[in-house]
Amino acid sequence: MRQDGRQVNELRPIQLDTQYLKHPEGSVLISMGDTKVICTASIEERVPPFMRGQGKGWITAEYSMLPRATEQRTIRESSKGKVTGRTMEIQRLIGRSLRSILDLDLLGERTIWVDCDVIQADGGTRTASITGAFVALTLAVEKAVENGKIKKWPIKDYLAAVSVGVEPTHGEILDLCYVEDAAAEVDMNVVMTGSHEFVELQGTGEEATFSREQLNQILNLAEHGIDQLIHHQKAAIGAVSEKIDTYKKG
Amino acid sequence: MRQDGRQVNELRPIQLDTQYLKHPEGSVLISMGDTKVICTASIEERVPPFMRGQGKGWITAEYSMLPRATEQRTIRESSKGKVTGRTMEIQRLIGRSLRSILDLDLLGERTIWVDCDVIQADGGTRTASITGAFVALTLAVEKAVENGKIKKWPIKDYLAAVSVGVEPTHGEILDLCYVEDAAAEVDMNVVMTGSHEFVELQGTGEEATFSREQLNQILNLAEHGIDQLIHHQKAAIGAVSEKIDTYKKG
Amino acid sequence: MRQDGRQVNELRPIQLDTQYLKHPEGSVLISMGDTKVICTASIEERVPPFMRGQGKGWITAEYSMLPRATEQRTIRESSKGKVTGRTMEIQRLIGRSLRSILDLDLLGERTIWVDCDVIQADGGTRTASITGAFVALTLAVEKAVENGKIKKWPIKDYLAAVSVGVEPTHGEILDLCYVEDAAAEVDMNVVMTGSHEFVELQGTGEEATFSREQLNQILNLAEHGIDQLIHHQKAAIGAVSEKIDTYKKG
Amino acid sequence: MRQDGRQVNELRPIQLDTQYLKHPEGSVLISMGDTKVICTASIEERVPPFMRGQGKGWITAEYSMLPRATEQRTIRESSKGKVTGRTMEIQRLIGRSLRSILDLDLLGERTIWVDCDVIQADGGTRTASITGAFVALTLAVEKAVENGKIKKWPIKDYLAAVSVGVEPTHGEILDLCYVEDAAAEVDMNVVMTGSHEFVELQGTGEEATFSREQLNQILNLAEHGIDQLIHHQKAAIGAVSEKIDTYKKG
Amino acid sequence: MRQDGRQVNELRPIQLDTQYLKHPEGSVLISMGDTKVICTASIEERVPPFMRGQGKGWITAEYSMLPRATEQRTIRESSKGKVTGRTMEIQRLIGRSLRSILDLDLLGERTIWVDCDVIQADGGTRTASITGAFVALTLAVEKAVENGKIKKWPIKDYLAAVSVGVEPTHGEILDLCYVEDAAAEVDMNVVMTGSHEFVELQGTGEEATFSREQLNQILNLAEHGIDQLIHHQKAAIGAVSEKIDTYKKG
Amino acid sequence: MRQDGRQVNELRPIQLDTQYLKHPEGSVLISMGDTKVICTASIEERVPPFMRGQGKGWITAEYSMLPRATEQRTIRESSKGKVTGRTMEIQRLIGRSLRSILDLDLLGERTIWVDCDVIQADGGTRTASITGAFVALTLAVEKAVENGKIKKWPIKDYLAAVSVGVEPTHGEILDLCYVEDAAAEVDMNVVMTGSHEFVELQGTGEEATFSREQLNQILNLAEHGIDQLIHHQKAAIGAVSEKIDTYKKG
Repeated sequence: MRQDGRQVNELRPIQLDTQYLKHPEGSVLISMGDTKVICTASIEERVPPFMRGQGKGWITAEYSMLPRATEQRTIRESSKGKVTGRTMEIQRLIGRSLRSILDLDLLGERTIWVDCDVIQADGGTRTASITGAFVALTLAVEKAVENGKIKKWPIKDYLAAVSVGVEPTHGEILDLCYVEDAAAEVDMNVVMTGSHEFVELQGTGEEATFSREQLNQILNLAEHGIDQLIHHQKAAIGAVSEKIDTYKKG
Repeated sequence: MRQDGRQVNELRPIQLDTQYLKHPEGSVLISMGDTKVICTASIEERVPPFMRGQGKGWITAEYSMLPRATEQRTIRESSKGKVTGRTMEIQRLIGRSLRSILDLDLLGERTIWVDCDVIQADGGTRTASITGAFVALTLAVEKAVENGKIKKWPIKDYLAAVSVGVEPTHGEILDLCYVEDAAAEVDMNVVMTGSHEFVELQGTGEEATFSREQLNQILNLAEHGIDQLIHHQKAAIGAVSEKIDTYKKG
Repeated sequence: MRQDGRQVNELRPIQLDTQYLKHPEGSVLISMGDTKVICTASIEERVPPFMRGQGKGWITAEYSMLPRATEQRTIRESSKGKVTGRTMEIQRLIGRSLRSILDLDLLGERTIWVDCDVIQADGGTRTASITGAFVALTLAVEKAVENGKIKKWPIKDYLAAVSVGVEPTHGEILDLCYVEDAAAEVDMNVVMTGSHEFVELQGTGEEATFSREQLNQILNLAEHGIDQLIHHQKAAIGAVSEKIDTYKKG
Repeated sequence: MRQDGRQVNELRPIQLDTQYLKHPEGSVLISMGDTKVICTASIEERVPPFMRGQGKGWITAEYSMLPRATEQRTIRESSKGKVTGRTMEIQRLIGRSLRSILDLDLLGERTIWVDCDVIQADGGTRTASITGAFVALTLAVEKAVENGKIKKWPIKDYLAAVSVGVEPTHGEILDLCYVEDAAAEVDMNVVMTGSHEFVELQGTGEEATFSREQLNQILNLAEHGIDQLIHHQKAAIGAVSEKIDTYKKG
Repeated sequence: MRQDGRQVNELRPIQLDTQYLKHPEGSVLISMGDTKVICTASIEERVPPFMRGQGKGWITAEYSMLPRATEQRTIRESSKGKVTGRTMEIQRLIGRSLRSILDLDLLGERTIWVDCDVIQADGGTRTASITGAFVALTLAVEKAVENGKIKKWPIKDYLAAVSVGVEPTHGEILDLCYVEDAAAEVDMNVVMTGSHEFVELQGTGEEATFSREQLNQILNLAEHGIDQLIHHQKAAIGAVSEKIDTYKKG
Repeated sequence: MRQDGRQVNELRPIQLDTQYLKHPEGSVLISMGDTKVICTASIEERVPPFMRGQGKGWITAEYSMLPRATEQRTIRESSKGKVTGRTMEIQRLIGRSLRSILDLDLLGERTIWVDCDVIQADGGTRTASITGAFVALTLAVEKAVENGKIKKWPIKDYLAAVSVGVEPTHGEILDLCYVEDAAAEVDMNVVMTGSHEFVELQGTGEEATFSREQLNQILNLAEHGIDQLIHHQKAAIGAVSEKIDTYKKG
């Protein structure tokens, strides 16, 4: 048993408070254990310069942490005057992931801005951001479809993300909290669709390396976790899930 | 009656959720109507270079808004690579205000970082930040006094802030929401102690100017609002309020 | 008597050298005792993007100090690569103040740039900047009205600024020099029109707080100082003052 | 057959010109087809502040492209004043990869700077950088061991990287050139040791997703490619390879 | 005799590898002894905003060094977030020099970007950059004339640059390597056309000053060196040299 | 005769108002016709990190223009967040020039900061800055020698600078005003000591080139101008000039 009593293949308690904020078209406060992220989706009626005139849309993501989301206060990136490499890496990952399940041709010339702001961090903030961003995106798109801005349902499939690690004591474990993450020798982030297809696979063994066998075990745990996350997403978005199911059936 | 049914001298509903986050020494989620700000206080065991070796402490404040705290999404200051003039003005105001009621000599060589992050904005974010920051500061100081880091209680008085405006229809009104703020001709922010002493007074009449008589009426409303805010602060910090009362008595 | 022999309600010697520079449309070297600021007003035949197509004008101000305007050399903001919070605060204040007495609708789509460059600092640089900026602005506007660019006189009233402080020895004193400013417990900057209406009121009590009674005494001194400053402005702009008087009469 | 006549599991022609530059401790010009990268390793006799006093070393990597390494000229990051997200991602990847095969405890308090400068780009610049960086690193370490600075051989294993893609016409293909990369639906970068252990796995399906079966085929191709790359590395470093083999045997 | 056996009026061995890279319109790797610079010329089908609508072209130059081009590794300007004064000075010099022999009216509204990237530095990198840039420029222009983009041959004359120094032991010496440059009291860079006309003359005596007589001797050496450099340029550009000769004849 | 009635070898009227500002150790307002520059010299009791522990001093220069020193307002470098290449070039030139006549070994471990702020520009601002900077430096050094900080007189010779140009109508002309500078084909800045030795020579022929004969005529005019400038400097510094003369005699 893990330090917080979980099984190796057990997620932390998940909570999705939808439409958490009053201004954004879509928003959710996602909690994965003590990790809490406010995800919002904002629709802007134009695309960036490099996309203009193509009749299609764009989606972009930004990620940040409150200075005291972490155990030690971290300096604001606005004070430093630049965004760190870690932040850039994460927001590029979120953006790419969302683009894989969104049909940009059906958006029209508009941009969806997804903002993931971590208000409390306890490991797995980037995967929680992706899982929450999918919900915020879906709610924003639903509103735009309802009011006729977006003509045809553009979300092709579910999307969720989870971390898996290899740790000296328990081997492969699902959904690492901060303490486990700090102890892990291998860290894998898996982004998957509702059809069990990979969207992103990012595995790192800075302290150690990992074998093909370990990789297989890691991916088994990831698939198991993704299934449960999508189950929660369906509950959170309610009837909207039918539109995704319809799209998938073609 | 005002658009949301309030009297001219009526505050919006106030809520103070103390210790809202798990990592910071002190934290509160303050809601003034739809304006919501997470205020945290973090204690660092050193002072900035210009203060070293004097045996006294320092307090500094930072302020930010989530991109979608506002009706239209605003660009992140970290993406722009610089902090706007408005943000600088506000965080300097928060810092100065807190320094007026904190005895830096009693802190020892440590810095208190106060972070005010607006997650939803509906007018009065800078005054809500000050009112909330006082609560977060008090909770962090209480903890540091309890565990013996700070030897003697250093908070001299209560501190709260409120906005008053002059608006064409209702004249002087207390605690403006966003719609009222946009319509106001004069905008005054008042920071006061529990002893009804002014700490900061910032009044602006960009569209119009204001007379000495109007100023007096504005200050009457401000004193009335500050009293109620401090009443809520006392309830939120509970028994700790006795330490402040003791300090005031000398 | 104060350290330089002044009464508590006495300004320092004022000098306004108009059209001090050859290139700007309007310029003045203002001296308030040893504080010397070059103020210029430049007219640009377009407005910033957010103002285009509205048929009205804009005015914006910038403030800076030569590195050796101060007793200790200060690092250039251009070398640091960013403008400090203090500078931003001051240039926003100057801009807002000037906008209160200028009818932007009558400017046409043009921008007036006001630059205040402190070449020698001895306290009160922001208030001297505002008092001087009004003169530079008036001279530039006069020229633009004469050559037909601006069709109708757009300056609504006089505008001047002064500091008042509370100091342990003399209590409330007018127009603080640097040494007095460093010793003051309360610092109030007052911007007023020729009609004794407030435009900006910025009072700070970082070391101490101040009562309503002290505020009243501060404002009395400020009104007294503003009257004399406007008297000097009238002498400096000469016959142009009639146009302002005519506008005020309606 | 692929556009340049290669089999799906065939690498482009590889060339490793060792000690290409006169100043660096280790250097190599790596060519993978038309992709050419100058990799250098520089040894600095100190570690960054966060590492001081631990008696161990550090390795860090930087990556850049000449403006006209690409078909269209790209703007210099020094002119833009900031490093792009893509560059940060790549240099973090190179650094992490090298740290996996280097025993930092054996370096002593010194930093190895690895610089990868792409002078001509035709796809796969990040994987060529890693493969080349290993060679430059080994040569620099060899020199430092010879002259007694580093006491004990610290490189634990070989390290190489290769890209594999999924492309509509040929399915899974090894070592994509630029044209293939632009057409690929899935892009996987694999970093592996000489012992067939994974160090990094980064797979992205922006346009499409990929199944577990495709992943297995991708990894088979990657292992095949890595074997050949390490074969070339051994030839390039010559007798030094014995020291790595010795370390591996323990 | 100098440390590397050269006479005081002798250049280092020169090599010009033309079309060294596959993507740029014109490119050359110039070696002056151990100083090696990749020079490229890229043609962009538009001019910067300040040049638009005038029917003429523009040429601009950028200069950089690989971090380990030097004996000690230098920090990347992209990491520092700004370009140093030295780099700015050099790239402005290269640009001005090239503009002196290029008829911008004949380019049409296009920009030629010249990039000089030093991969190995041993003194004289700015003069080698100019000499190489002329070759890259000529090759790019030749291509644009051939494919009809540029209608009429626009290069007016040859252009080369060389350094001359005054050194305690040997007095005036031509084409200083790094060790000589470090020891020199006077450093002169001379840019000249094929007609022996000066384009730029930049002489500095930081440690010492120099007399009019020394200047004359310096310029004699410079003319001698420029003649030989242009001889090498002619060999490198081959038949294209006839077009320059034709232009010169009128 | 030139447009302002001068002979080709005639300087504009020169004025040197010494100790123009109250705070700096040395200061002067130099006017060369309508070009006006405030030059100050500030002494700091430490050297930059790269100079520490060598027992010698350093001198560094900064240059800037007020936004409306020019006919069209120029954007502040502090607003742009970076210093332009032109400014860097000029301040490096001023610094190098002053270092040539100052014996850094005699300064002790202190830095002299020279600031040249152009308040009105009409051509020749960089040469006026150097000529004025020499005066400010001398006055600051005199004060430091008098109060015993600097033990031995460290200024070795006089230093002045002047521009010479080649213009279509009048050929070679001395000390160009802005209109002449804009029309000139060749622009030469000459920095010389009181002993007629060159310190810096910077000649540029962007529009045209220049011959060896023209260069000789240019240098004749420069020497003539420098003589007169040094004559004015002597008058401005008064008795201090004897110390320089004594140093020169050895």
